[in-house]
Amino acid sequence: MGEKKVLVVNGANMDLLGKRDPGAFGADTLDILMGELVEYGKEMGVQVSLFQSNVEGEVINILHEAMGQYDGVIMNPGSFGHYSIGIKEAIDAMPIPCIEVHLANFYRKPENKSVLAPVCRGLVCGFGRDTYKTALDGMLKITG
Amino acid sequence: MGEKKVLVVNGANMDLLGKRDPGAFGADTLDILMGELVEYGKEMGVQVSLFQSNVEGEVINILHEAMGQYDGVIMNPGSFGHYSIGIKEAIDAMPIPCIEVHLANFYRKPENKSVLAPVCRGLVCGFGRDTYKTALDGMLKITG
Amino acid sequence: MGEKKVLVVNGANMDLLGKRDPGAFGADTLDILMGELVEYGKEMGVQVSLFQSNVEGEVINILHEAMGQYDGVIMNPGSFGHYSIGIKEAIDAMPIPCIEVHLANFYRKPENKSVLAPVCRGLVCGFGRDTYKTALDGMLKITG
Amino acid sequence: MGEKKVLVVNGANMDLLGKRDPGAFGADTLDILMGELVEYGKEMGVQVSLFQSNVEGEVINILHEAMGQYDGVIMNPGSFGHYSIGIKEAIDAMPIPCIEVHLANFYRKPENKSVLAPVCRGLVCGFGRDTYKTALDGMLKITG
Amino acid sequence: MGEKKVLVVNGANMDLLGKRDPGAFGADTLDILMGELVEYGKEMGVQVSLFQSNVEGEVINILHEAMGQYDGVIMNPGSFGHYSIGIKEAIDAMPIPCIEVHLANFYRKPENKSVLAPVCRGLVCGFGRDTYKTALDGMLKITG
Amino acid sequence: MGEKKVLVVNGANMDLLGKRDPGAFGADTLDILMGELVEYGKEMGVQVSLFQSNVEGEVINILHEAMGQYDGVIMNPGSFGHYSIGIKEAIDAMPIPCIEVHLANFYRKPENKSVLAPVCRGLVCGFGRDTYKTALDGMLKITG
Amino acid sequence: MGEKKVLVVNGANMDLLGKRDPGAFGADTLDILMGELVEYGKEMGVQVSLFQSNVEGEVINILHEAMGQYDGVIMNPGSFGHYSIGIKEAIDAMPIPCIEVHLANFYRKPENKSVLAPVCRGLVCGFGRDTYKTALDGMLKITG
Amino acid sequence: MGEKKVLVVNGANMDLLGKRDPGAFGADTLDILMGELVEYGKEMGVQVSLFQSNVEGEVINILHEAMGQYDGVIMNPGSFGHYSIGIKEAIDAMPIPCIEVHLANFYRKPENKSVLAPVCRGLVCGFGRDTYKTALDGMLKITG
Amino acid sequence: MGEKKVLVVNGANMDLLGKRDPGAFGADTLDILMGELVEYGKEMGVQVSLFQSNVEGEVINILHEAMGQYDGVIMNPGSFGHYSIGIKEAIDAMPIPCIEVHLANFYRKPENKSVLAPVCRGLVCGFGRDTYKTALDGMLKITG
Amino acid sequence: MGEKKVLVVNGANMDLLGKRDPGAFGADTLDILMGELVEYGKEMGVQVSLFQSNVEGEVINILHEAMGQYDGVIMNPGSFGHYSIGIKEAIDAMPIPCIEVHLANFYRKPENKSVLAPVCRGLVCGFGRDTYKTALDGMLKITG
Amino acid sequence: MGEKKVLVVNGANMDLLGKRDPGAFGADTLDILMGELVEYGKEMGVQVSLFQSNVEGEVINILHEAMGQYDGVIMNPGSFGHYSIGIKEAIDAMPIPCIEVHLANFYRKPENKSVLAPVCRGLVCGFGRDTYKTALDGMLKITG
Amino acid sequence: MGEKKVLVVNGANMDLLGKRDPGAFGADTLDILMGELVEYGKEMGVQVSLFQSNVEGEVINILHEAMGQYDGVIMNPGSFGHYSIGIKEAIDAMPIPCIEVHLANFYRKPENKSVLAPVCRGLVCGFGRDTYKTALDGMLKITG
Repeated sequence: MGEKKVLVVNGANMDLLGKRDPGAFGADTLDILMGELVEYGKEMGVQVSLFQSNVEGEVINILHEAMGQYDGVIMNPGSFGHYSIGIKEAIDAMPIPCIEVHLANFYRKPENKSVLAPVCRGLVCGFGRDTYKTALDGMLKITG
Repeated sequence: MGEKKVLVVNGANMDLLGKRDPGAFGADTLDILMGELVEYGKEMGVQVSLFQSNVEGEVINILHEAMGQYDGVIMNPGSFGHYSIGIKEAIDAMPIPCIEVHLANFYRKPENKSVLAPVCRGLVCGFGRDTYKTALDGMLKITG
Repeated sequence: MGEKKVLVVNGANMDLLGKRDPGAFGADTLDILMGELVEYGKEMGVQVSLFQSNVEGEVINILHEAMGQYDGVIMNPGSFGHYSIGIKEAIDAMPIPCIEVHLANFYRKPENKSVLAPVCRGLVCGFGRDTYKTALDGMLKITG
Repeated sequence: MGEKKVLVVNGANMDLLGKRDPGAFGADTLDILMGELVEYGKEMGVQVSLFQSNVEGEVINILHEAMGQYDGVIMNPGSFGHYSIGIKEAIDAMPIPCIEVHLANFYRKPENKSVLAPVCRGLVCGFGRDTYKTALDGMLKITG
Repeated sequence: MGEKKVLVVNGANMDLLGKRDPGAFGADTLDILMGELVEYGKEMGVQVSLFQSNVEGEVINILHEAMGQYDGVIMNPGSFGHYSIGIKEAIDAMPIPCIEVHLANFYRKPENKSVLAPVCRGLVCGFGRDTYKTALDGMLKITG
Repeated sequence: MGEKKVLVVNGANMDLLGKRDPGAFGADTLDILMGELVEYGKEMGVQVSLFQSNVEGEVINILHEAMGQYDGVIMNPGSFGHYSIGIKEAIDAMPIPCIEVHLANFYRKPENKSVLAPVCRGLVCGFGRDTYKTALDGMLKITG
Repeated sequence: MGEKKVLVVNGANMDLLGKRDPGAFGADTLDILMGELVEYGKEMGVQVSLFQSNVEGEVINILHEAMGQYDGVIMNPGSFGHYSIGIKEAIDAMPIPCIEVHLANFYRKPENKSVLAPVCRGLVCGFGRDTYKTALDGMLKITG
Repeated sequence: MGEKKVLVVNGANMDLLGKRDPGAFGADTLDILMGELVEYGKEMGVQVSLFQSNVEGEVINILHEAMGQYDGVIMNPGSFGHYSIGIKEAIDAMPIPCIEVHLANFYRKPENKSVLAPVCRGLVCGFGRDTYKTALDGMLKITG
Repeated sequence: MGEKKVLVVNGANMDLLGKRDPGAFGADTLDILMGELVEYGKEMGVQVSLFQSNVEGEVINILHEAMGQYDGVIMNPGSFGHYSIGIKEAIDAMPIPCIEVHLANFYRKPENKSVLAPVCRGLVCGFGRDTYKTALDGMLKITG
Repeated sequence: MGEKKVLVVNGANMDLLGKRDPGAFGADTLDILMGELVEYGKEMGVQVSLFQSNVEGEVINILHEAMGQYDGVIMNPGSFGHYSIGIKEAIDAMPIPCIEVHLANFYRKPENKSVLAPVCRGLVCGFGRDTYKTALDGMLKITG
Repeated sequence: MGEKKVLVVNGANMDLLGKRDPGAFGADTLDILMGELVEYGKEMGVQVSLFQSNVEGEVINILHEAMGQYDGVIMNPGSFGHYSIGIKEAIDAMPIPCIEVHLANFYRKPENKSVLAPVCRGLVCGFGRDTYKTALDGMLKITG
Repeated sequence: MGEKKVLVVNGANMDLLGKRDPGAFGADTLDILMGELVEYGKEMGVQVSLFQSNVEGEVINILHEAMGQYDGVIMNPGSFGHYSIGIKEAIDAMPIPCIEVHLANFYRKPENKSVLAPVCRGLVCGFGRDTYKTALDGMLKITG
């Protein structure tokens, strides 16, 4: 069995990371974080592919295409996590596992609710810049 | 800086794991899972201590004592996660990070709500028998 | 097949019965009611064991131990019925039937809600001092 | 004091019992269950009268007529239990006790709510085909 | 009539007072505050007894025992105030008055709700380190 | 530092005290209670000023004027406590502490909600005719 | 223009009036009240027709027939007022005015809600045995 | 027994009647309607007194004064009916009956709720310009 | 396989169609619409039977009898759709498909909710006088 | 008048039909179903145009363009039906009728709510693979 | 057509502006802001009249008087905006436009709701000390 | 400091303005209104740029690009205002002020809620075709 492949999807407004609120996660932009993750993937023997869009339908399309091409999806939905039932139903249709991630502890505010959580396989949040890597650790274990 | 120490707390009814619903997580009991975790900790260079109780006040007491003795706490609250504000406020008073874990994807049912989540540093759920290990992976990164 | 065994569990504040509100159920204490029930059990050929505690975790523990030792459990949760999800999940894990009882008609107040009812096999309430006996009548029939 | 008389009322759709969902309670029809109950009543020295209707107003009428003729009413409201305030107020006006029964544990679904429960003297549910008999056991004790 | 006796009960997490959040009430621990209160009681001619526990059932037990031994109870429920119906019903059963206290103004957050308040005789909150003493002032007046 | 000055404000319908419902607090009118309070103030070395009105705007005006003239305000809002956001915002603007009082335990009915509580410094209720005096005891301590 | 004709409809359980709860409205039965009303109608020059049924569909039928035969309808819905949308839509279809009446002040309980009120022309309640007559007074004025 | 005296109170914005929305009740102003009512009172042998104010506290004051001077109060609360708990508690304190009136059918909109209704003796609404007179008819009957 | 048979049931107040609100669906009465439908059925080779009642229990009875006699039921519940759980459970017990129809778009008002919809096979609404025919078109296809 | 033209729009995730959940509607893909519909349209003399997109804005654009070009729109919104107010307002602006369709009975789950339903002319659901055809039957009748 | 006249009304607690919370809007009092507005009005050729009161009824009275004297009203309701249905119905009765203003962005807190907004012509908020002037700009345009 | 630059963004369905509902705002299309606004901007010395899209992601993208290029944004979200958290979070990330506008009084319907309002600097609505211009007046003042 060859090298594993994982698709990492970042949703609406994630392209602003590190540009608007340096206090929260340092000045690291999404590019920096994703660069680190690709490196970390190489160390762990995983091929990490990247996708970001602010258009909900493009995220749905990439998920439709992901089936059969990847071993799993790591999804930071950004703004879409609050309301996109379209993305939710696309995840629900995928036979491969999807792990939802948030850099901060999304559930610190009790009123927060991710519409995607019910159809994801698992959830990792609150580890800051180590969140994506921790999710990749877990993805490797469950697809081992 | 010496070896890290992590306390793993399992709450109400977690002692039944593997005894009641083999279909969900296999026939592994809590003892087996915890044994694996202690082993995994050794590989990663962490000393893992274990505690389980069905009495809420005993969990509160162990958390009060944990401060100053451990680098972090991994908490599977079991039934307590639904309602124990006493444990919540004990976690909130700890200066060390607490990671909440659930073997299954706790948020699959949208009406589920953990009263502990708002005061935990992070959350890992849905990785089945690999959940505790993934939480330990993350704990090592954030306390690095 | 030998003599049947039934465990009767009384929860928080049930030890006050007959001591605080004589008008409602006469001056009979829990001891008197339980004594009558043990006698009634003997007449019916059932061995009735008794347990009472104001500590939720002790009730959870006794339920964990009850599996394999009894043919059924009769539970008057007292105050715990309003909120103890810990006891609820312990009942849910038992392979033997649990009958919830209340001396008064618990549902006379429409806002009352027992968190245990969804996992109990049945419910008997409103028969005053005859409530435990009526529950035992039914327990014998369903475990016949 | 002569033989006791108890009226057993079955409401909307109870005439379908045993005809639609054999898996739940076996293939016994309402006629079979009621026949058994009449027999059981004879053994216990009670005269059991039977009434079934799918018309709410006819159930209200029979309850109005029941006062003075019976020692108690056992009511399986069928569909009416969800919404008939007319039957509720008719029960509330009766000076004799009314015991509500359901073959299954009606309260297993937390959202279930019987509009009749607040005005009934007691409740017996979840004992399957033994439910009516258990209710009769209790009725005899409270009207003893 | 001899010296008055008042029991002061502190619930879950109150043992952390002064250890976690010095900014809110100064660095005074529960021990210091209780020591002051016992002294103040002596000045006022009252014998103050102290009890603290993080186990709900132990608080219920002490309240059961308190009847007949004390003239009143002052209760700072700590975390238990948010959800312990067991303690609520134990208070409700006591023939002596119980005054609920909170150091801060518990009702500053409109969503806060003490489940104990409906069964307490009175409430004193918001006077900081003078709260227990003010409650004792009032207790003396109503039991005068 | 000279004699302290405290303003006591009674809101809508408090002028009816002792005239409508003698059973609840005896036959004492507001005048009698306030007379006692002024006397008690003299003993404690406080100058107590009194104000009562059924017109919401007049209560707002007196609070605006109170700043700079008094050391604190004791407020029994009467009917206004249920809905007057105007008085709430006036209290919120005062730099001096305001203690809300109710003769009975206002929170005995769980649905009761004071719109003023979130902006008051503290709360004293349930001490009957000793309520105002107990509030004054506490006011002296916090403004000591 | 000849003598006016008014139909008075009494719904579910109104036939029990005076038989169940003498304390509320005296021992007068519906027959006595309706007899008085017919007499009062004669004095006022109105022909009063009477109808009572516990069967919702029969009330709907009489309302369908009422159009063209009467100048107005006075409706005491009894239990039907809480839930009968069937009667509501029948009233809504009538071109003649319908006045809803209740002997007691139906709105004394804030949670009460009549499903009929939105389609009635007016409402008279709380005048006890004078309620029907007061409604007739008003009916004469608006159809004058 | 002398002539009866009835006080008619009109609340906030009732002084605009007939000036803003002629379509609803014709062009009759409050003065015209009240003039007719005084005349009608004379025919019926009642002395009708009138009061209108847009200031809530003045309505509370007039109700406090009304006790002992009138046989009953007819209240059209205008805007106050939606929220004035101050007027509600003033009505509740009056030993004489208060009848709430609305020209239109206040309950046509199911979300409407009068905070005064629970403390009024009765209610008359929906008779348009004949509403006050119908209320007077009923007042005479119940105070007869 | 012979000619298909379909039962068309019209519930409460449907007999008023075309008599009360000509603007909405023209002046066609239920008789006219049903006559057209029987004709249309003949063209399509279906035998259409008709039933209408304002008595809920009679609708339940006809559904009980329909099993085994028809290939499907088309139900316009009229007023019953809002609340009749009795009819709902009768439909749920039928092994043949039931199609719910409404002449207007029932869901135009977002607060509308049919209690029958969850147990029907399908739904056709909003086609005005062509609604029944469209439902018949679909019934033929699914029972083909 | 020439051949009718109908636009059929399929929304988010409808392109997955037959690829993810064969059990529900067989293995037919959207292409197969749409192919059948175009054929069926030809038989009925209608020109059926097809459009599918996972991008909400593209669906809005096609609806804007549809006005003036088609006699009606048949819309299966897929995931968009749960939340797209943008599509809702675009439908609302079209002068031609829009029929909403769902293959399954969308209203089987009572909590389901289509935000589009209030602005559509009609609704057809639950006829499985015959749903689009039944909607076309109805569309022909209302645009006849 | 002569000079335009605009009435500016400030409600409860607006007289405290600049006295309590300098951080929010600077140290400018209402007098300063209103002085600037009158000056700005002169530049724009409008006569600005001013009114402030903490008594709800006085605001209602001024609005009643405003009809016929002004071209429009600019209303900063202060505390009244949260609950005064009396002012709401007075605005609703005015034939001239009323613009509601708030210095801060009133809708920043999603739970905020102005009871006045539904009857105002428009709304301007969030422009700080320029808010009144911007509202005047708009008022001139719509009454041009 | 040079000429100011303001970006005006119109969201989903705003391109239909003047084409669907001439009664509400006249027959002016968005093009006409925007043309007038650009002209008005020139008079006021502001360079107004225009953007419209029905695709949410394109609006997010333009806002990301707007930072650093404009002095402020005027946003008429059209349909997006009801639900687009993606646009909300994009606005929240912009360091320049955003003013939300609606031609009609958006808050006339109390159930209306803009998800964007909490992150906008201010709000102008209800001035019809003068709304954009009034918003520009205010924008000039706050960025002066």
